Amino acid sequence: MNRITDLHAIVPAGGAGTRLWPLSRAGRPKFLLDLLGTGRSLLQATVDRLDPLVAGTVVVTGERHADAVRAQLPGLDAQDVLAEPSPRDSMAAIGLATAVLAQRHGDVLVGSFAADHVISGDFAGALEQAAVAARAGHVVTIGITPRGPSTAFGYIHAGRTLGLEGAPDARAARGFTEKPDAHTASRYLATGDYRWNAGIFVARAEVLLGHLSEQLPALHDGVRELARAWDTPGRAAALAEIWPGLERIAIDHAIAEPVAAQGGVALVPGDFAWDDLGDFDALAEHLVEEGAGADDGAPVLAVDAQRPLVLGADRAVAVVGLDDVVVVQTPDALLVTTRAHAQAVKDAVGLAREAGREDLV
Amino acid sequence: MNRITDLHAIVPAGGAGTRLWPLSRAGRPKFLLDLLGTGRSLLQATVDRLDPLVAGTVVVTGERHADAVRAQLPGLDAQDVLAEPSPRDSMAAIGLATAVLAQRHGDVLVGSFAADHVISGDFAGALEQAAVAARAGHVVTIGITPRGPSTAFGYIHAGRTLGLEGAPDARAARGFTEKPDAHTASRYLATGDYRWNAGIFVARAEVLLGHLSEQLPALHDGVRELARAWDTPGRAAALAEIWPGLERIAIDHAIAEPVAAQGGVALVPGDFAWDDLGDFDALAEHLVEEGAGADDGAPVLAVDAQRPLVLGADRAVAVVGLDDVVVVQTPDALLVTTRAHAQAVKDAVGLAREAGREDLV
Repeated sequence: MNRITDLHAIVPAGGAGTRLWPLSRAGRPKFLLDLLGTGRSLLQATVDRLDPLVAGTVVVTGERHADAVRAQLPGLDAQDVLAEPSPRDSMAAIGLATAVLAQRHGDVLVGSFAADHVISGDFAGALEQAAVAARAGHVVTIGITPRGPSTAFGYIHAGRTLGLEGAPDARAARGFTEKPDAHTASRYLATGDYRWNAGIFVARAEVLLGHLSEQLPALHDGVRELARAWDTPGRAAALAEIWPGLERIAIDHAIAEPVAAQGGVALVPGDFAWDDLGDFDALAEHLVEEGAGADDGAPVLAVDAQRPLVLGADRAVAVVGLDDVVVVQTPDALLVTTRAHAQAVKDAVGLAREAGREDLV
Repeated sequence: MNRITDLHAIVPAGGAGTRLWPLSRAGRPKFLLDLLGTGRSLLQATVDRLDPLVAGTVVVTGERHADAVRAQLPGLDAQDVLAEPSPRDSMAAIGLATAVLAQRHGDVLVGSFAADHVISGDFAGALEQAAVAARAGHVVTIGITPRGPSTAFGYIHAGRTLGLEGAPDARAARGFTEKPDAHTASRYLATGDYRWNAGIFVARAEVLLGHLSEQLPALHDGVRELARAWDTPGRAAALAEIWPGLERIAIDHAIAEPVAAQGGVALVPGDFAWDDLGDFDALAEHLVEEGAGADDGAPVLAVDAQRPLVLGADRAVAVVGLDDVVVVQTPDALLVTTRAHAQAVKDAVGLAREAGREDLV
C-alpha cells in the first residue's frame, strides 16, 4: 500500500442523519457516532482509512461540530479542520477545501470522501487508479460494485474503457442517476454497466476548480476569495461577507452531472465493501446479519421474534412476536420500529419538532 | 344500594399475571398494580367496590404478599388478611376463608371475588339477586353478558329460570366450559344462553362446605381443622401440619362443575362491564380504545402507527410503522410486542428464567 503523495483528502462532515434518530441528533450527528461498536466513530474510521494513503486530510464541518471533530481527531492539525458558519451543501464545502488546498499546496490532487460511510476491503487499489486518472485531467469517481438492486443509492452509468496506463479499469462515466425505483434498479444491474454512487470524487485541484468556474462562476469566485483569506487574519471577515451568499448545491449537480455529459468524468470500479449506513435497516445488515458487534450487552429475550436489532438498551429487552424489529434507547428517547420502516424514522424527528421538543431533535 | 348484612366477601389475591410482565412480577403481582392509572390498585378497587355492599371482607393471599396487601388496605383488620404458606389454588383459598368465616360468624353468606378484575356498572343489583339465590341454598355464580365471542374466558351455560322471589333473573347453571375456540364461542353467543365466567361464587357457608365435603372430603376436613385453629395460638402449627397436604384444585373443578351437573348451581346475569385485564390486549382495550388513563405522560411520537400502548416510559417514545404495538418500560426491563401477541408475553418470563435472570421474573 503506497501513499499517494500528491493526493489530499477532503472529508465533508455534515448532515445529521435523521434516519438514525435517536442515536444521531442535530448536535451529535451520525459521523461522530461509533455506530458499529468498533471503538471508532465513522469520522475517525474514515480518517484512519485515508491517513496512510494520502499526503494529508482536511475535514470540512459546521462550526457547531468543529470542536467535537478536533477532539475526535487529535492527530489532525487545527488548520485542517475547516469550519463552515452554516451549511451550504457539498459543492461549497468541497470547493472551499479544494481552493484552500490549492492555495496551500498548488495544483495537487484532491479527493472527497464522506465522513459517515463504512468501507472495508481493497480501497487503496481503487484509489491509486483514481489518482492516475485524475492526474490525466479527469474528474474521477469510484463506483461501487452493487450488492443488489438497491433503491437507496444513486447509480453511475459506466461507458467505454479509457485505456489509461496505470488505471486499466478506468472507464468514462456516461451519467449519474438519482435513487431509482426497484424495477429500474434491476434493469441497471442486468446491464452490468451501473455502479453505486458513493460520492467519492478525485481530481486535480485546478481541474475541479476550472469546472466549477465554468459551471457556477459565482460559487467558484467565492471559494477562491475565501481561500486567499483563509490562512490570514482576514478569514472571519471574508467568511462573514462571502459565505452566506454561496449557492447551496450538491457536487453531483454542480459538477459531476454536467461534466460527465461533456465526457470529463472517469469511473474507477470499487470492489470493496461499502455502505452509507443510511438507516437502521443498513445498520442491522452489519450488526445483526454479519454479527459485527450487535447490541451493547443488554440481554434480549426474543419470543417468536427473528433478528431483533437492539441498541443502547440499559435494561433487559423482551421482543415478542415481531420480526426485524428495531429498538433503540437513549437517555431521553426510545425508538421502536422495523427494518422495513427504517426510512420513515426521520418523520419521528419531524413530529418531535412539531411537538416543540427541540431537545429531542 | 343496600348493604347485604349477611354476606362476607372473600377476595383470593394470588397469581403473578405473567402475561402482564414486566409490570407484574412474582414479587409484585398484578393485583397490587394500578394498571388503569386510577390511583388505586386492582385489589384496592375490588375492596372499594365490595366494602359498601357486604358485612365484611377477607383477603386470602400468599405469605410473601401479606404485608403489601395489609399496607394497601389499611381499613382492613389484620385478622381479615389470611396468609397462605404456599399456593394451593382457589379451592383451598376460598375453602379456608369460608371455614374461617363460618367459625367466626356461623352460617353466613360468602362470596368470592377475584382481586384483579375490573368492574364498573350495576354490580350491586346482580349481587343482591345472587344473595337471594344463595340464601335459598344454591351455589350462585354471576355470569357476565358477553361483549363478543371471546376465546379468552370460560363460559357458563344458563338453563331454566328458577322463579325465585327477589331474584327474578336467576337461572339454573347447566354447566361450565373452558376457554372455547372462536367457532365455539360464536356458536355460544348465537344461542343467547352463554355467559362469561368471572369466577364469582356466592353461597351459604355451610352449603359451600357441604358440597366440598361431598366432593373432596379431605380438603374439606383440612380447611375445617385449619379454621378451628385459625384464631388461636395453634394456627401456625396447624398450617404447618395441614396446609402442605391440601389438594391443589380450582373451585370451578372442585365444586362449580360437579354441583352444576347435580342442578345445584344458579346463575345470575351480570350486565355490568367486567374484564380480567388478562393481558396487554385487554389492558389496551381500556387504556387506548376507551382512553381511560393511557400512558404516564411520556410523549409518544407515532409515525404510521395506530393505537400504540406505551406504559411506564420515562422518556419520549417514537413508534414508526407498527400498529397496535405495546411498549412497556420498567427500571430493569423493556417489553416490545403487539396486541395480537399479548398472550405470548408469558414466554418472555420463561426465557428470563432460563437465562438465569430470576431478578426479572
